[in-house]
Amino acid sequence: PGEGNGAASDFLLSGFEKIEVLRDSAREKNIFIHGKIAGQEAVVILEKTPIREETLPEIFKDSRLELEMKNDIYSTYKLQPPPHLNEIKTTVVCPATEKHVKKYLRQETYLLEESGEDYLSITLPFIQSQSFSVQWVYNILEKKAEADRIIYEDPDPELGFVLLPDFKWDQKQLDDLYLIAIVHRRDLKSLRDLRSEHIPLLSNIRKGGQEAIRKRYGVPANKLRVYLHYQPSYYHLHVHFTSLSYDAPGSGVERAHLLSDVLQNLEADPRHYCSRTLCFPARADDGLLRKFKEAGKV
Amino acid sequence: PGEGNGAASDFLLSGFEKIEVLRDSAREKNIFIHGKIAGQEAVVILEKTPIREETLPEIFKDSRLELEMKNDIYSTYKLQPPPHLNEIKTTVVCPATEKHVKKYLRQETYLLEESGEDYLSITLPFIQSQSFSVQWVYNILEKKAEADRIIYEDPDPELGFVLLPDFKWDQKQLDDLYLIAIVHRRDLKSLRDLRSEHIPLLSNIRKGGQEAIRKRYGVPANKLRVYLHYQPSYYHLHVHFTSLSYDAPGSGVERAHLLSDVLQNLEADPRHYCSRTLCFPARADDGLLRKFKEAGKV
Repeated sequence: PGEGNGAASDFLLSGFEKIEVLRDSAREKNIFIHGKIAGQEAVVILEKTPIREETLPEIFKDSRLELEMKNDIYSTYKLQPPPHLNEIKTTVVCPATEKHVKKYLRQETYLLEESGEDYLSITLPFIQSQSFSVQWVYNILEKKAEADRIIYEDPDPELGFVLLPDFKWDQKQLDDLYLIAIVHRRDLKSLRDLRSEHIPLLSNIRKGGQEAIRKRYGVPANKLRVYLHYQPSYYHLHVHFTSLSYDAPGSGVERAHLLSDVLQNLEADPRHYCSRTLCFPARADDGLLRKFKEAGKV
Repeated sequence: PGEGNGAASDFLLSGFEKIEVLRDSAREKNIFIHGKIAGQEAVVILEKTPIREETLPEIFKDSRLELEMKNDIYSTYKLQPPPHLNEIKTTVVCPATEKHVKKYLRQETYLLEESGEDYLSITLPFIQSQSFSVQWVYNILEKKAEADRIIYEDPDPELGFVLLPDFKWDQKQLDDLYLIAIVHRRDLKSLRDLRSEHIPLLSNIRKGGQEAIRKRYGVPANKLRVYLHYQPSYYHLHVHFTSLSYDAPGSGVERAHLLSDVLQNLEADPRHYCSRTLCFPARADDGLLRKFKEAGKV
C-alpha cells in the first residue's frame, strides 16, 4: 500500500472515539479498545510486535537512550528506537457487534479467602443451587463421548480415572502439553472434599498419569506440573498435567495446588482441606463473588 | 537525567557487540542478548513497554498507519507511533559474569523434589559454596542505592522491611504492578529458614506491604498476589507483591508460595518448612540440579 492508503488510514483512526478499554495485557503488550469510527461501533486491538534479532544492530546504532537507574553492575534505560523498527500491529473490527465487544471484555478479578466454614455456609450451597451439569464428564467416563481421545484408563471404580488431552491442547507439539485426569468415582467435587482416605486415589492418579504420559509422549515426570484447581471449573474431581515449560493458563499460585503438596498436606493432617483457609480468584461477574459479598466477606 | 546522560548512554550501546541471543519471547516482546561493551562482558535485555491507556489519544492522532489486510469487517494495519510513546525498557548488566549469562540463557527446566534432608545435605552446602553476593540488597537496605525508589519502609531491625518496585516494573501502569519487600534482618535465606517465630515478621510484611500499596497506588489487598519464591533468585528473604490480574513471571504454582499459605503452614506446624518436601523448577544448567544428580536424586 502506498501513501494513499496511509493517508486514508490515518484519517480512520484519528477519528476514533474511545468508549472503554475492554482488556489489556502488560505482559503481552496489547490493548483491546471499544469505540466508534465515523459513528459506527468498532473494536481496535493494538499489540506491540516482537523484537527481531536482525533489527538489533540498527536499534543499537540509531536509538535514543536515557538513563533511568544505576546500581552496581545493573543499569536501566529508556530506549527510543527508530519508528520503522518499532511498530504496533493494529486490528480493527468495524462495524463491531455487541458479541465482539463482550468477547474482548475482561472482568476484574478478586482474590477471595474461603475458610472451612465459609465453604460450608457460602460456597457449598452456591454450588448446589447452581446444579452445574457434569453430564459431559459422565459421557466421557461412560465412553459415550470422546472415547477416541482417551489416552489411558484405569477402570477401578474406587482408584481409577481416565486421562485425555485438554481441549486447549491441539496435540501438535509437546511445548504446551496439557492433559486432564478425571476420576471414575462421582462423590468428590473438589480439593475441599479430599481427606487422608483419598491418598491412594491421588497417588494412583499421579503415578498412572505420569507413566502414561511418559509412554505416550516421551515426557518424563520431572517435566510435568501436576495440580488441581481451586475453585475448579467443574465440580467433579480432576487433575491437570501440563508441561513444566508451558506457562499454562490457570497454573498460577492463586489457583493451582500441586498434587505433591496436596498429598503431603493430607498425610500431615487428614482434615487439612476441610479446615484450611483457601485463596482463590473470582471474576467480577462470578455468582460466588456476589455470595461472598452478601455474606460480608469481601 | 538530561541530554548529557542521554548522549553518554547512546555511546554505550552503539558500541555493543552481540555474541548471541540468550532468549527471546514473541509473547512478551523481549529479548536477552549476551555481548560486549567496551571489551567487557555484558547482558542487555530489551523489553517493549505496555500500551498505556492515557497515551491512546496521542497515538491515534499522531501515528503513521499502513493498511496490511482488509476482509469484511476485519482489517489490520502497521502503526508507527511517536517514538516517545513507544519506548523499549532496556536493562544492562555490565560487567556480567558467566552466571549472569547462564541465568538468562533459555534452558530446559526440571522439577526437583527437595526433602528437608536434601536441603541440609545438598542445597545448603551448595548455596554456601556459591557465596552469591547480595551486596546490592545491602546497598538498598543501607540507602546506598535506589533510595529514591523505596515507596515504604518499616525500619524495625527485627520486623522491618523496605518495599520497592521490582526492576521488571516500569511503574507506568498498574496492570503489571510488581513490588518486592526486602527484610532488614540478614539471617533468613529463604522459605526454608522460616519457623513459627517468624510469623510476626511475615504478618507485618503482608499487612504493611498491602497497606502501602493501597495508599500509594490505590490497589486493594484483594487484587494482590503476595508470595515467596522457592528457590529464590537471591538468598536474602524477600516477598513478591504482584497484581492479581498480571500473569507475572515466576507466579506459577511450581515456584510461588502464597504468603497466606506460608503463615497457615507455620501456625499448624512451627517446623513445616524444615521438614516438608518442596518442589522447585531447576534449569538444565543450574549447579543445584547437578548436585541433585550427583546425589542420585534425579
